[in-house]
Amino acid sequence: MDLKALAAKNPEHWKKAAAIRALTLDAVAAANSGHSGMAMGMADVATVLFEKHMKFDAAAPNWPDRDRFILSAGHGSMLLYALLHLTGYADMTLDEIKNFRQWGAKTAGHPEYGHASGIETTTGPLGQGIANSVGFAIAEEILRATYGKKIQNHNTYVIAGDGCLMEGISQEAIGLAGRHELGQLIVLWDDNNITIDGTVELSDRTDQLQRFKASGWHVQAIDGHDPIAIDEALTAARKSKKPSMIACKTHIALGHAAQDTSKGHGALTDAAQLADAKAAYGWPYGAFEIPADVKAAWEAIGARGSAERAEWDSRFSGLSASKQAQFNRAFAAEAPKKLAAAIRKIKKDAAETKPKLATRSASEKTLQAVNPVMPETVGGSADLTGSNNTKTADMGIFDPENRAGRYIYYGIREHGMAAAMNGMALHGGIRPYGGTFMCFTDYARGAMRLSALMGVPTVYVMTHDSIGLGEDGPTHQPVEHLAISRATPNTLVFRPADITETAEAWEVALSQPSTPTVMALSRQGVPAVRHEYKSANLSARGAYVLAEAEGKRQAILMATGTEVSLALEARDLLQAEGIGTRVVSMPCMELFAQQDDAYRKRILPGGAVRVAVEAAVRMGWDQWLLGERGRESKAGFVGMTGFGASAPADRLYEEFGITAEAVVRKVKSLL
Amino acid sequence: MDLKALAAKNPEHWKKAAAIRALTLDAVAAANSGHSGMAMGMADVATVLFEKHMKFDAAAPNWPDRDRFILSAGHGSMLLYALLHLTGYADMTLDEIKNFRQWGAKTAGHPEYGHASGIETTTGPLGQGIANSVGFAIAEEILRATYGKKIQNHNTYVIAGDGCLMEGISQEAIGLAGRHELGQLIVLWDDNNITIDGTVELSDRTDQLQRFKASGWHVQAIDGHDPIAIDEALTAARKSKKPSMIACKTHIALGHAAQDTSKGHGALTDAAQLADAKAAYGWPYGAFEIPADVKAAWEAIGARGSAERAEWDSRFSGLSASKQAQFNRAFAAEAPKKLAAAIRKIKKDAAETKPKLATRSASEKTLQAVNPVMPETVGGSADLTGSNNTKTADMGIFDPENRAGRYIYYGIREHGMAAAMNGMALHGGIRPYGGTFMCFTDYARGAMRLSALMGVPTVYVMTHDSIGLGEDGPTHQPVEHLAISRATPNTLVFRPADITETAEAWEVALSQPSTPTVMALSRQGVPAVRHEYKSANLSARGAYVLAEAEGKRQAILMATGTEVSLALEARDLLQAEGIGTRVVSMPCMELFAQQDDAYRKRILPGGAVRVAVEAAVRMGWDQWLLGERGRESKAGFVGMTGFGASAPADRLYEEFGITAEAVVRKVKSLL
Repeated sequence: MDLKALAAKNPEHWKKAAAIRALTLDAVAAANSGHSGMAMGMADVATVLFEKHMKFDAAAPNWPDRDRFILSAGHGSMLLYALLHLTGYADMTLDEIKNFRQWGAKTAGHPEYGHASGIETTTGPLGQGIANSVGFAIAEEILRATYGKKIQNHNTYVIAGDGCLMEGISQEAIGLAGRHELGQLIVLWDDNNITIDGTVELSDRTDQLQRFKASGWHVQAIDGHDPIAIDEALTAARKSKKPSMIACKTHIALGHAAQDTSKGHGALTDAAQLADAKAAYGWPYGAFEIPADVKAAWEAIGARGSAERAEWDSRFSGLSASKQAQFNRAFAAEAPKKLAAAIRKIKKDAAETKPKLATRSASEKTLQAVNPVMPETVGGSADLTGSNNTKTADMGIFDPENRAGRYIYYGIREHGMAAAMNGMALHGGIRPYGGTFMCFTDYARGAMRLSALMGVPTVYVMTHDSIGLGEDGPTHQPVEHLAISRATPNTLVFRPADITETAEAWEVALSQPSTPTVMALSRQGVPAVRHEYKSANLSARGAYVLAEAEGKRQAILMATGTEVSLALEARDLLQAEGIGTRVVSMPCMELFAQQDDAYRKRILPGGAVRVAVEAAVRMGWDQWLLGERGRESKAGFVGMTGFGASAPADRLYEEFGITAEAVVRKVKSLL
Repeated sequence: MDLKALAAKNPEHWKKAAAIRALTLDAVAAANSGHSGMAMGMADVATVLFEKHMKFDAAAPNWPDRDRFILSAGHGSMLLYALLHLTGYADMTLDEIKNFRQWGAKTAGHPEYGHASGIETTTGPLGQGIANSVGFAIAEEILRATYGKKIQNHNTYVIAGDGCLMEGISQEAIGLAGRHELGQLIVLWDDNNITIDGTVELSDRTDQLQRFKASGWHVQAIDGHDPIAIDEALTAARKSKKPSMIACKTHIALGHAAQDTSKGHGALTDAAQLADAKAAYGWPYGAFEIPADVKAAWEAIGARGSAERAEWDSRFSGLSASKQAQFNRAFAAEAPKKLAAAIRKIKKDAAETKPKLATRSASEKTLQAVNPVMPETVGGSADLTGSNNTKTADMGIFDPENRAGRYIYYGIREHGMAAAMNGMALHGGIRPYGGTFMCFTDYARGAMRLSALMGVPTVYVMTHDSIGLGEDGPTHQPVEHLAISRATPNTLVFRPADITETAEAWEVALSQPSTPTVMALSRQGVPAVRHEYKSANLSARGAYVLAEAEGKRQAILMATGTEVSLALEARDLLQAEGIGTRVVSMPCMELFAQQDDAYRKRILPGGAVRVAVEAAVRMGWDQWLLGERGRESKAGFVGMTGFGASAPADRLYEEFGITAEAVVRKVKSLL
């Protein structure tokens, strides 16, 4: 590359891009770790994007109608931090840049949502950003249809690398975006032909343009160091009614000795090479030094959207008070007041009718009541709508003909669905939930962890939650998946026992501002276990006494979900033998763990034999069986010790020994 | 569809295909559950494949050079069971077909590897089969290069559905197969345009031919009910030097009232409709009745390969005794005798030199010794070769120019890698291992679970196993992933403390016939903790006393991996205060749990305070802290309670309070 010629051709552009490159080199050198090459390679593209296309106002980073910029190739975090600093985001100070990758800094190794304004999502695990972006774009379409294009009408821009495009999740995102003609979504592919192991050809020879085109995308290929070409391509992409992919041919670590090598992907910290690279840029400034004129030019870019934002504010003020309130409430992820009443009504009805229902059906009934009072919910399923019971009347189907549709057929794409839901939640204004079989937590894990890490209240509707699904067999029967979700920090895992607990679980889930929920729901029918109406949300405390011991309390049975009714049966048998038995329903361990000592002690006093029943592995239960005043010699577990099998559900419960009789035997063996 | 015309055009073919359809209808009706439509739609394709192309001998189902048939769309299991029964596989009796989806039957809801001959892999979770098939095809290429084409030269055939192709993992598989020009791999896509939620167009409009072509595949599109077209397409595919995809346009549930509908995907059990469908086929037979001439025709197909198989036997006998032994040993997944010596040598050297090493480097050193004595190992990494330390000298790189290469650049495809490794292990003759960061267990989970469920000894080399990876931050720092793998049945999770334990862990992993292993390895260096050479593999017992208490034993510290040296430091501090402290290293909880009571009691006697140290969440530890003679009042845990952060590793250990001093404080607070 003849950098001098490049600089001479577009000198003003060049300086702005060089500022990104220099800050990247300096920050990585100071941290002695990080990824230099991507930011250096994509600096031209990012500069043109921010200068000429991005609608944003650095002084109002939360402007709901801003364009979203998603750095899917999150290891290039310095690109984002440099842009935010240069354009004048108040919280991205030069000190933050200097503290790149240090304890307490906003400038984490990979962009962490919530650390600083302008970080729209957490990226790093490759492919997540591009899949989030589909959710951002869907959210924008739905809100545009809902509030009008004067209130919502923005683009979602993504920078994705080769790694993002090799990850399978990208195909799910590409297919979904193509199907729904998400024309405001624009992906800039950093086509640098380098991965960590070497050239891309070592592992892939996919023609990416042809691949995106096959899924209905508008595609272009440009020189990613030519600002004119970048500008023209972005203009064309914005005009296209299809989602757009622009292949930007770039040189990783442009201008550095490591240019075009896999070494250039990593931390370029050699002082002499760093100085050489800066010299090649014609950048005679010291470490972290940005000349005033360049900074001023960048700050002007950061302020470019200020008038437009002010106009938006005034348009927004023109909305009716109720529309404004709805918009603000949804963006604040606050549940409406009507939610509590809707839930109470379900509970009242349930106390009267005591329906025998699969909890997935209970969930559907709950959603039927909730969706009309929470217009911000957007439901969906990974091609299991009728099984997950996620669709309720009057939601409408989201597609290019019905942008106001609130139900999404995600296709057989659990991971893409989860990441898209995260994107919707991050965009704001939408509260997403989506379903698949509990076992396919495995497929969605990458995005489910990020819900928890980012603190977004995505709701995962995971039906067919145990061997109780029967004949489909062990590939479809979760045994370790409750433990998997419970092991994940900042995640509520609900396994409700009946319709009352299901409604209560939904109330908690839909009231979370920053915690995702996994709803583990049954395929098979279960009797109502809560016969008496109580206005209080008992499930919100995680565990509670469902049935008290008669006579001296000798045993405490703990159970979740479909095994709660089995624990009640066991209690009947034990009480008939004069063994006083309490049943504790424990729909959410995490919430129970958050209760104060006094409450926990009230529910799980010492002394009695404890037996837990759950059609899953024991991991996670010892905390309640052996801890919390429990003792090994007086504790037992009735559940699964290995994988399930294919047979009718009742037979499986018998064969795997998860029965009321087994619980009784276990209790008696411990007394 | 004019079935009569179809039948008239190819009457012999029609009857054979009708037998599959009839058995499918009968079995699903008897089970009152299952998936009828796929088997009915793809019966023609499968019939032509088995009749005219598949190299197999039903009397010798384990013939190592047989063609492999993989039903990636595993819900269509009756297609496979019908084929196996009709062609005369001894263990697929008519009774098994009649017991479809019942307890103890070989005919599980989805094909389960190990249940019956001819089930080459477990499918059901969509996309796994097509991704396994890439591993099968790679294994075949490597073995062909190793043993010659007279010993290995077979095709891998896959039937995949729309669901398989929508799952992201399929893109990883397609990209990998295209890159490596796996010309013996042939995918038959059941292009029926139906998913559970409705038509494919609801969620996808991808041009699949263009998509496969973009990754270097040979593609064809045919009428999947025309046996001539099917035959010609298979012939062309077999000739192609590229992997082949044949789009077979079919009608789901052909001939049934539910044909071409999503209802047809499920269980078609209505008696009248069933009778009508059979009538439409011209199939006047009773339930499960196969007329003798049709059964005979199918059995002739099953015996067609018998002469070829006998010739193969004689060619195999012509190999040198040592080649035969190597081949048989590798197919039996038996470790060579030399393995033990290689491991002992590493341990001896380590006892002398006591190297400070990251356990990922210790793993590399082990592989350097192991790979030369185990020619069946095939290593790789999901684009983190230099970080996972999975590549050793003289392996060679697998690619079209070097089919004998034993190292695979999988690209940024964790899920595809894991599934391909399963495919290699299932093929036989290969013992695969592959690396990524521990945190990306999340991406590979779907396939990792199947390793465990199928019982194949895939080894997952998961480096960067804690906050100890430092600056890359919480997206890359596993905290729940040890718990996730430990919660999974039939999985060994090793977290070795130093080079000696790492070598021992590899010895165990490479000796497993039917259990996968997760190796959790550190990025950061750790001191050697085993200073004395012992020939016995202490890690094989899961946990052992690394340092005994001096004086009265008041405390037992338990730790894994990088925290073992920290426990030793804590012990020094405690002993200096006169607090007798034992350190138990616990590299593999699963193996420790398998030891007898006496051994476990010897390692974890009652009485002393117990503190466990692991830079991860507590889940899974209560079994050893509170159980096994432990008590809540005398047990503590030093580890993580939430996600990590971006900073240098030492700082993170300090900030998250995982230090020798914290362990000392915890012990003293419990005494």
